[in-house]
Amino acid sequence: MRKLAVIGLGHVGATVAYTLVTKGLVDELVLIDTNEDKVTAEQYDILDMLARLDTYTTVKVQDYSTLKDADIIITTFGNIKVLSEGGNRFGEFDHNTEQVKSVGAKIKESGFNGVIINVTNPCDVIATLLQRYTGLPKNQVFGTGTFLDTARMQRAVGQALKEDPKNVSGYVLGEHGESQFSAWSTVRVKDHPISEIAKLHNLDLDVLDEQARRGGWLVFHGKHYTSFAITTCAIKLALAVLSDAHLACPASVYIEKFGCYVGYPAVIGSNGVEEVNNISLTDAEKIKLEKSANFIAEKVASVK
Amino acid sequence: MRKLAVIGLGHVGATVAYTLVTKGLVDELVLIDTNEDKVTAEQYDILDMLARLDTYTTVKVQDYSTLKDADIIITTFGNIKVLSEGGNRFGEFDHNTEQVKSVGAKIKESGFNGVIINVTNPCDVIATLLQRYTGLPKNQVFGTGTFLDTARMQRAVGQALKEDPKNVSGYVLGEHGESQFSAWSTVRVKDHPISEIAKLHNLDLDVLDEQARRGGWLVFHGKHYTSFAITTCAIKLALAVLSDAHLACPASVYIEKFGCYVGYPAVIGSNGVEEVNNISLTDAEKIKLEKSANFIAEKVASVK
Amino acid sequence: MRKLAVIGLGHVGATVAYTLVTKGLVDELVLIDTNEDKVTAEQYDILDMLARLDTYTTVKVQDYSTLKDADIIITTFGNIKVLSEGGNRFGEFDHNTEQVKSVGAKIKESGFNGVIINVTNPCDVIATLLQRYTGLPKNQVFGTGTFLDTARMQRAVGQALKEDPKNVSGYVLGEHGESQFSAWSTVRVKDHPISEIAKLHNLDLDVLDEQARRGGWLVFHGKHYTSFAITTCAIKLALAVLSDAHLACPASVYIEKFGCYVGYPAVIGSNGVEEVNNISLTDAEKIKLEKSANFIAEKVASVK
Amino acid sequence: MRKLAVIGLGHVGATVAYTLVTKGLVDELVLIDTNEDKVTAEQYDILDMLARLDTYTTVKVQDYSTLKDADIIITTFGNIKVLSEGGNRFGEFDHNTEQVKSVGAKIKESGFNGVIINVTNPCDVIATLLQRYTGLPKNQVFGTGTFLDTARMQRAVGQALKEDPKNVSGYVLGEHGESQFSAWSTVRVKDHPISEIAKLHNLDLDVLDEQARRGGWLVFHGKHYTSFAITTCAIKLALAVLSDAHLACPASVYIEKFGCYVGYPAVIGSNGVEEVNNISLTDAEKIKLEKSANFIAEKVASVK
Repeated sequence: MRKLAVIGLGHVGATVAYTLVTKGLVDELVLIDTNEDKVTAEQYDILDMLARLDTYTTVKVQDYSTLKDADIIITTFGNIKVLSEGGNRFGEFDHNTEQVKSVGAKIKESGFNGVIINVTNPCDVIATLLQRYTGLPKNQVFGTGTFLDTARMQRAVGQALKEDPKNVSGYVLGEHGESQFSAWSTVRVKDHPISEIAKLHNLDLDVLDEQARRGGWLVFHGKHYTSFAITTCAIKLALAVLSDAHLACPASVYIEKFGCYVGYPAVIGSNGVEEVNNISLTDAEKIKLEKSANFIAEKVASVK
Repeated sequence: MRKLAVIGLGHVGATVAYTLVTKGLVDELVLIDTNEDKVTAEQYDILDMLARLDTYTTVKVQDYSTLKDADIIITTFGNIKVLSEGGNRFGEFDHNTEQVKSVGAKIKESGFNGVIINVTNPCDVIATLLQRYTGLPKNQVFGTGTFLDTARMQRAVGQALKEDPKNVSGYVLGEHGESQFSAWSTVRVKDHPISEIAKLHNLDLDVLDEQARRGGWLVFHGKHYTSFAITTCAIKLALAVLSDAHLACPASVYIEKFGCYVGYPAVIGSNGVEEVNNISLTDAEKIKLEKSANFIAEKVASVK
Repeated sequence: MRKLAVIGLGHVGATVAYTLVTKGLVDELVLIDTNEDKVTAEQYDILDMLARLDTYTTVKVQDYSTLKDADIIITTFGNIKVLSEGGNRFGEFDHNTEQVKSVGAKIKESGFNGVIINVTNPCDVIATLLQRYTGLPKNQVFGTGTFLDTARMQRAVGQALKEDPKNVSGYVLGEHGESQFSAWSTVRVKDHPISEIAKLHNLDLDVLDEQARRGGWLVFHGKHYTSFAITTCAIKLALAVLSDAHLACPASVYIEKFGCYVGYPAVIGSNGVEEVNNISLTDAEKIKLEKSANFIAEKVASVK
Repeated sequence: MRKLAVIGLGHVGATVAYTLVTKGLVDELVLIDTNEDKVTAEQYDILDMLARLDTYTTVKVQDYSTLKDADIIITTFGNIKVLSEGGNRFGEFDHNTEQVKSVGAKIKESGFNGVIINVTNPCDVIATLLQRYTGLPKNQVFGTGTFLDTARMQRAVGQALKEDPKNVSGYVLGEHGESQFSAWSTVRVKDHPISEIAKLHNLDLDVLDEQARRGGWLVFHGKHYTSFAITTCAIKLALAVLSDAHLACPASVYIEKFGCYVGYPAVIGSNGVEEVNNISLTDAEKIKLEKSANFIAEKVASVK
């Protein structure tokens, strides 16, 4: 049976929990947060749904020991209040790199041996630290990374061309943050290279790249957090793990030569990262990726 | 094709919009709010989901004229900031009874002739006013009312007996507010009258009644709003309208003899309230219902 | 993760397998049939779906040893060709009571320790024999039994009253066969006893009882088998087991005093039959139930 | 609200109807077949599901006049009994080209102005004739065509490489029949051209092409019809129409220069075929496509 835990019940964690229950995707759900009142509130708001849903989910709270036989942990802890508008995802750096130590230690202590999907920002740094502190094999820990930014690039390109975002394929790579970039050489629209399409429709790819990178801040500006798109990404990855789907997608995965986690094409299955998918990039894209990865590695190194 | 509008993009409205899209339940969604930045933020957080979902939904914003051919409007406007903890749903009374005038007028002006499902609190009062200001037939307007409180009663009874809440049937009636009550004579657990079960298991029905009535405040205390259970109720009602399901359930419906909307058993289908389902009540329950309905009617009368 | 096996790939077994995959309900599916070509055909018809679905399911075939860690086995084997129209479900008696021996022995040998949901007819007899031959605890084996017949009674009553069948509650009890009966004292329509409703609307309950009992033959007459409703019942029960839903419903469960499986109210969860739900019946209904159970017990006794 | 009709209740039509109801995808379903007993049987097997599903669907039968306001008609009529194993989809040619005349005339007479998705074989010929006999604009009629064969190619390539079929993109083009071909220049596996992958893994593309073309016969051999994968394709296309998804996929669409319907990349939305997507092909592929289209055109011309 399917058992999943969410650590951190902020807007994203709560929306992840809600979505898993309202779609009937898991059989048992464990909710953990440092704020006891908050976790109780989310638990009861979910329990009050059960009479109106056709599916059933057992909801447990606050007990790390129940993680032992969980299939997946989604980590969504963090302190969004320290984020200032227009700032970047490193606003939470000090708080979250501190918190990840105790979360990692408690996960390790529980005997958990499933897959961790990290959402907490800065996503790539925290994924790197979670793997370190839990001691899990590197494939069993990964982050949502540029899976979300790629969705935003697909949306931006789709909007510009009046296309369904799913008709746009390709990758945003690197940090889930400012140093990310749309790898345009990989992007295709209905199987046409975007370079051709851009010429035909006078698209400015730099503008679209910026829309992908800054898309989260537009949302943040109006609602003071982002939740729906990131939740959708996290859940798609979780289902890929549960069903061993071998989903090909970008995610924050460990890249040996960079020594850290970074957004890169991967294949997700029941073992977590089943494979790193080495795709062709232009020389300029390779340099951007290296710079972005180095930035992450430095940030990781700066953690005391 | 299925077209639905949400007016008011607070926590509930946004969660309703999110749920409709993540479950692929509607083909076109219209989002309206007085806060332009908020509606844009929710729109983009939803658009950024589309590349990761198997379903597609067209999302339009802020245009009342698009309501003309909508099947359903869910009203979730309101100002939750004026609610003080431990208070009651009338904290929003002045603000929301004022806002309902302009919302009702704009709906009327759009030529909308579908079904309105009201969530805005105080739910029964606002439903009454929405019907008045839109001029729609009384069956085409109704509120979530005690559909939510009944779910909480089912959860409370279920918890006490370690039962699935769906194994508990029956009704909470009256106001979606303090004067509501669990009509215990209608409640059955796995087809046994709760009176028998209560004796057998030493259940204190007054305590359970209180848990249903105050359940929302437990959630409110920890997360400062409630969203998941109320959203689940609103969407179940919306689907009953879309598919003409003739769903038998409590809802805030117009009762002739009370002259206002109040939580009562009904049947929901494509015409909204297809039928008021007059069930047997004890004399004491009849009195409680009348008192609760009179309270709503007085509040309605107090609106200038 | 969710693992389920289907033994017997006739129309029902194939439809069960299809539904589990098209709804993304299980992570791993095992298909077993004595006809190797048939099982390969169903496997490939399912595999060819995967490129068009958002979910993924691993499909394995013909290997009883993979049952060891399965959560559920649904048994749908049988030889429908020996059924003659207008006959009864005992047309398959000799064939299926023979086959159940080898199926039971192979399940036992696999080390399977989950829950068996039997669909094979005569449903109550085969459930009794499956428990015997597998040696599993009695709660871990049950049959769909009158869960389907009850759905047909709800449909027949609903049609007569132009009501959603879900607005009809109550039970058909006894054999999934000719000796079954609608326990009218348990039946309610939108929370009104059917005795009152019948008087009000001039319903002939004997006719409705007959429609429930013979409903399957109407379907059988036109399509030469029944598949959709029985599949829907089997899957609802399977989900109740997977999610530990404690679903209150009629099913073919072991009743001590009858010494066999028979359609009776129960509660279904992760242990299979969590509880037998002893509801009130009239004296006449008690006699009908006993007669029906005795008929099943005799049939079981007649198996060599 | 969503209204869809199925004409032809053979294995595919019945599975389409079942799937629409079990997934709650439409609000109203119309079933039409020349065999009155068959359509009644399928109707009741579906009605008997409703008490066990959380969704509701109105099911109507046999009345062409109800098509007037339907959104979509899926045509699945045909006489599969005249198909001989190892034969081809033209086994049904005489029967189905005769039947399409009356079906087309009745659809026209009903005043239907939605989208027709044709499944009846030979798919491209019947789509061409349906457009002719209904007089609907060419974009409002299309066939499933090589959408299914492409799924089989994805499955065959996926199996050979132990990949999820969804990690394989690209097109099978031409006739839904023997003259179809995998356009390998368009096929990519996890964003690598299949030419590179084939070299790396010693794949024989001719063998894989044959597996896609003959995949249906493997299924046909074991179950005497195919139903699950074709249903899945038809429903994905129907949802794209209902939600105006602008789904980019191969389908049997009208190509001006060939004067007939043929499997080719298209974009499917609420108007049916929103766009023909002219992708790059090699000269050899262009010749194969022309030959295949000419074959279809000749068959169309041969209809009296």
